Amino acid sequence: MATPRRTGRRPGNPGTREAILDAARAAFAERGFDASSIRSIAAAAGVDPALVHHYFGGKDQLFLAAMGAPLDPGELLPRVLAGDPDGVGERLVRTFLGVWDSPAGVAAVALLRSAVSNEWTARLLREFLVTQVLRRILQHLDVDPAELPLRGSLVASQLVGLALMRHVVRLEPVASAPAEALVAAVGPTVQRYLRGGLG
Amino acid sequence: MATPRRTGRRPGNPGTREAILDAARAAFAERGFDASSIRSIAAAAGVDPALVHHYFGGKDQLFLAAMGAPLDPGELLPRVLAGDPDGVGERLVRTFLGVWDSPAGVAAVALLRSAVSNEWTARLLREFLVTQVLRRILQHLDVDPAELPLRGSLVASQLVGLALMRHVVRLEPVASAPAEALVAAVGPTVQRYLRGGLG
Repeated sequence: MATPRRTGRRPGNPGTREAILDAARAAFAERGFDASSIRSIAAAAGVDPALVHHYFGGKDQLFLAAMGAPLDPGELLPRVLAGDPDGVGERLVRTFLGVWDSPAGVAAVALLRSAVSNEWTARLLREFLVTQVLRRILQHLDVDPAELPLRGSLVASQLVGLALMRHVVRLEPVASAPAEALVAAVGPTVQRYLRGGLG
Repeated sequence: MATPRRTGRRPGNPGTREAILDAARAAFAERGFDASSIRSIAAAAGVDPALVHHYFGGKDQLFLAAMGAPLDPGELLPRVLAGDPDGVGERLVRTFLGVWDSPAGVAAVALLRSAVSNEWTARLLREFLVTQVLRRILQHLDVDPAELPLRGSLVASQLVGLALMRHVVRLEPVASAPAEALVAAVGPTVQRYLRGGLG
């Protein structure tokens, strides 16, 4: 069944994509990811929901585009979390540093700077961590769901802090250390936060 | 011997303090803390060096004022680093969280937001960590000087990341957890970074 074009809804044009992203950022920051629907975002942007799906796919992908996320944790994390549970801390640090050290790292630095700059953008980063990262950990790793929020947010505190020191503040020697030296030093921390005792 | 007031140097007035702070921020960010002198900062601000000493005391205090630092690590850290070496990780996390959870935390959040926003302010935070925090650790804790930079920057990555998640991104449950729960969870990380094996 074809979607009829209704009065007052904009057809696809160069400004439409940006209008959808603006509406998505506002919705995700103000109401959160779970309470935002593609239907309501489309309405706020004055376009048909089918056009949102056409441009972005599902709600996860729309969120990643709205955040300017350089990659999709939903593609990356399942591989990292699979395999030997005793090595998940090191694999997570290695993959995380690999993203930041890659060309995608420029976008990641911009994202972090933006997220820290005000309440509104900080909320987007929080929604991103909760819905795109922590939930994937729960899906792919044997973690007690009741403990996941604390474990996951401790991991986030260490990894985001590491990226901040390496790529934004550029504190030496963390700024220019070989990634594997940081994997060896920080891997056990992440391992304990995910699977060890928390005191 | 009285310092003669020379031509072209401004006397103390309400704008003088701010002019000194501006000159100090520029000097510390551009040349670094060690290469900046009170004499050169005074010259850049167009005032007599004695006036800088009069307003701010020494170079450390001028730097803290220029940063907008809510307190002086030189007063806080010696107490934290003294005492049982096995408990230094927990004491450091407890003291750090205490500052951020106190009224001074508002200034700390502003400082962190500012530091992350651009290269110039990030350099000030880096100088602050190196000269005001890491050097104190070396002075008061039995750490191999060759290992101090890596150990100290790992501690900074964890503690600043924790403050970011608790007070800026407000990721739950780290955002509202009792400080002691975070001391128990993060203390062993900081302890290992300061005194344990780094892999």
